[in-house]
Amino acid sequence: MPEYKLTYFNVKGFGEPIRFILSYMGKEFQDNRVSFEEWPQLKGKAPFGKLPILEIDGKVLHQSLAILKYLASQAGLSGKNAEEDVEIDMIVGAYGDLAAEVGRFMRTENPSEKEKLKETLIKETIPFYMSKFEAVLKKNGGYMANGKLSWADLLVVGHSSSLPGLVGHDLTENYPFWKELTEKVYSLPGIKEWVKKRPESVF
Amino acid sequence: MPEYKLTYFNVKGFGEPIRFILSYMGKEFQDNRVSFEEWPQLKGKAPFGKLPILEIDGKVLHQSLAILKYLASQAGLSGKNAEEDVEIDMIVGAYGDLAAEVGRFMRTENPSEKEKLKETLIKETIPFYMSKFEAVLKKNGGYMANGKLSWADLLVVGHSSSLPGLVGHDLTENYPFWKELTEKVYSLPGIKEWVKKRPESVF
Repeated sequence: MPEYKLTYFNVKGFGEPIRFILSYMGKEFQDNRVSFEEWPQLKGKAPFGKLPILEIDGKVLHQSLAILKYLASQAGLSGKNAEEDVEIDMIVGAYGDLAAEVGRFMRTENPSEKEKLKETLIKETIPFYMSKFEAVLKKNGGYMANGKLSWADLLVVGHSSSLPGLVGHDLTENYPFWKELTEKVYSLPGIKEWVKKRPESVF
Repeated sequence: MPEYKLTYFNVKGFGEPIRFILSYMGKEFQDNRVSFEEWPQLKGKAPFGKLPILEIDGKVLHQSLAILKYLASQAGLSGKNAEEDVEIDMIVGAYGDLAAEVGRFMRTENPSEKEKLKETLIKETIPFYMSKFEAVLKKNGGYMANGKLSWADLLVVGHSSSLPGLVGHDLTENYPFWKELTEKVYSLPGIKEWVKKRPESVF
């Protein structure tokens, strides 16, 4: 069995969907969490200076979406053809746009600007995307694409679980289809056990 | 033959790689260019309020990377298996991080902040990524992944052709492998003809 070592920060973010999919696949993995203090010393070793990276028997993969997609092809969580894959990829891309806005907020240091961005996120950006996603979920029988579980579901549930800690906003409170999807993903074999045992993190 | 209608702005950016791949595939397409003045009225019609969108016989695809990947599977520009696809996806993701920094610069309105971001882009971000990409190209026989042409090559050459107009910085000047890749992509059947006839745009 290959050895998996995931390196990320001690947060959920873009690492959590990878932890989800490895758990779903029943793979043991080394959950290597780098502190923000250690990171500047280690940054130079990451292929493009970013985390997460996943080592599989020493081979280094980077870019969370590339990693997820690769694992999804082994986990049976990809589309069955190009038509299904594009449905997944569109949702992943749209969610990525929302995540980029969250990332922009995170990176902003100026306190008044940060507060302004947080307000825009909570009052405009998140409601805009969530109304779209609720419609997508409704149309797809409670999944993000193709009426069945895919890596897009693991991505959005895993990554968005950082939002309560980051912006004090829990998406499952106001969006019933999202809540249902979250509960569904959290009950999946492997993920259920992972969520119980995962380390605490602020976001 | 399906009817293709690409809607984007009158710029290269994330629309150009799609124009490249459709041209490479020998597909006629309606090259619908929306002005920045018209856009606010049309924004509500795009699935997630963003361009590009590609309509194929009326079916609306959104998210440039999803569209490219979908077309690539028909054009023979995907990987031949998951191992090759992940190599492409890693490069696409890394280039996307660079493109996001360019996008951040574009969206910044405050003149002094914009100037600062431009300087960081030109002096730090672009050289950092380009030194990595040059090494990747060298390792892959002049291509971005797997030692052969893929949609990653069309993406990076198409999108980065906006940089001279955007930040006054032509990547082909300082990076010999990038220059060679650009020339190779611009000489591909279909793309060669497209580049000759494409409309002028500021970036």
